[in-house]
Amino acid sequence: MKKIINDPDQVVEEMLQGIVFAHPTVRRLPGYNVLVREVISQKVGLVSGGGSGHEPAHGGFVGKGMLDGAVAGSVFTSPTPDQVYEAIKAVDQKKGVLLIIKNYTGDVLNFEMAGELAEADGIRVEKVIVNDDVAVENSTWTTGRRGIAGTIFVHKIAGAKAEAGADLDDVKRVAEKVIDNVRSMGMALASCTVPAVGKPSFSLDENQVEIGIGIHGEPGTHREALKTADEITSQLMDKILNELNVSQKDEVAVLINGLGATPLMELYIINRKVSQILTSKEIRVAKTYVNNYMTALDMGGFSISILKLDTELKELLFAPADTPALVQN
Amino acid sequence: MKKIINDPDQVVEEMLQGIVFAHPTVRRLPGYNVLVREVISQKVGLVSGGGSGHEPAHGGFVGKGMLDGAVAGSVFTSPTPDQVYEAIKAVDQKKGVLLIIKNYTGDVLNFEMAGELAEADGIRVEKVIVNDDVAVENSTWTTGRRGIAGTIFVHKIAGAKAEAGADLDDVKRVAEKVIDNVRSMGMALASCTVPAVGKPSFSLDENQVEIGIGIHGEPGTHREALKTADEITSQLMDKILNELNVSQKDEVAVLINGLGATPLMELYIINRKVSQILTSKEIRVAKTYVNNYMTALDMGGFSISILKLDTELKELLFAPADTPALVQN
Repeated sequence: MKKIINDPDQVVEEMLQGIVFAHPTVRRLPGYNVLVREVISQKVGLVSGGGSGHEPAHGGFVGKGMLDGAVAGSVFTSPTPDQVYEAIKAVDQKKGVLLIIKNYTGDVLNFEMAGELAEADGIRVEKVIVNDDVAVENSTWTTGRRGIAGTIFVHKIAGAKAEAGADLDDVKRVAEKVIDNVRSMGMALASCTVPAVGKPSFSLDENQVEIGIGIHGEPGTHREALKTADEITSQLMDKILNELNVSQKDEVAVLINGLGATPLMELYIINRKVSQILTSKEIRVAKTYVNNYMTALDMGGFSISILKLDTELKELLFAPADTPALVQN
Repeated sequence: MKKIINDPDQVVEEMLQGIVFAHPTVRRLPGYNVLVREVISQKVGLVSGGGSGHEPAHGGFVGKGMLDGAVAGSVFTSPTPDQVYEAIKAVDQKKGVLLIIKNYTGDVLNFEMAGELAEADGIRVEKVIVNDDVAVENSTWTTGRRGIAGTIFVHKIAGAKAEAGADLDDVKRVAEKVIDNVRSMGMALASCTVPAVGKPSFSLDENQVEIGIGIHGEPGTHREALKTADEITSQLMDKILNELNVSQKDEVAVLINGLGATPLMELYIINRKVSQILTSKEIRVAKTYVNNYMTALDMGGFSISILKLDTELKELLFAPADTPALVQN
């Protein structure tokens, strides 16, 4: 295993320290793997999180216009309920807290349990479950579809709604509207290596890729020979658009997400084809994000997320944000 | 070679198309591999660039508060003088143009030749040459030190100065002050692969790293066995601080730069140690950037850049910026 780390068992601890040193707008709850805004404002609180290894998700999205708290589990492992519970208590301002959970069995159970603990304290807690990945129904760690990079749109848009002063029901409504309208799919060129495991999670032949990969290396739909960027992109877009009710004159947002080891050059080549496909269908692209947003450690590959917009979602998507990983004016 | 591309000879062309589709604030000069701001304002123009493969550098830094134009050569190959000349003409607003050149023989020659062509047209052109890499004196493609990720600080600070309405001499002065006060050094875990070559530029053993690597895979100071993140970081910081005149109570900015295939988790672990080292020396960190800013395609590794600040540099560093790869409020 070739990684720039110290102790495989300390990667999350040391990463959190490095994040806090870098970003003074984010602070850590003492004794917990929880990052919260330095200044929590009087509004509905938004808490997300999950296993580590998906950086900048989720701690990178803590800040104005997005999340109030992010809980970091061990690598690719759900955070425990007590950690999530602390996050909820830290961000609650008597206006309730929305949990944004990616659809993995462990995350759903532990976030729900934390929510129940907080409700026993009199904090109002609601949840939404993101399941944007169209690759597979049910999977290694999921009943139903998995939650992947489309989650960033939920953070952004629900975050903007909360920032605007909406109440918990309204923030939850808009988060669910995003979830209903976002679909994603990814692929891998090369496996990631979990530090504590020390060897690649799976192996692919020199000319082989995995279509529909999960963000923890879970199997996708199938393996096949490496094709061109345009062919791979078309294949993913076919499946995404097939699951998303978009047609001529509709407007969408695009997120091209690197899984950790994929150069920005390749992500832009992918975006070229995504844009061409959408334009050929007379679907308008209102906004495009191209970067590493929800990674899988050092995995080679990418995912595409498409969000169908309406007037409300578009306005909230364009609202300002100020977080370590996403700043918008 | 496992890459998500179409034709190795078309990667720059297709990437530029993908960038323009994604970022409406940036436009391409028709027929040239030049990205310029969609709206060029009345101020000193800033042009940078170099070989492609370092994304988001340099096109990702075109925008308010940073560059006006970026010229993209072929992968790891200097852009030709005619391309740079077009960029200069496109951004000139009769207030002169500053060329920000990384110190590689090809870049220096071609940017200088372009400057002469523009001056023959009556455009006032000045240049600065960035040589922040303390690893080696002279190298494969360099006389003197190489220019690497510290260049981002030059873009940011000279960009802010130009945005504030300073004249060409003053923008050049502040760019040179940054160059005088920034030092960087990197290391590689794994080689990059140039698409048109199709195989790794160099090879390292399973447990071997290259200290002082260049951003095109040029040799560094030496190879050695992989050590811990803290040990590697200390080693690079020793050399950087040795070349930079900083002492107790001084204030610095830090840039931890991924070379393309290095997870953000590891960059933050590195930042933890950088921060600890600086704190132990009572050097204050005013601002920290952790991300992929100047990559080397899919190279595994990172670089550290430290900029010694004074009041003027600090104020300009904190000024707003709005570019595809760096947004600051």
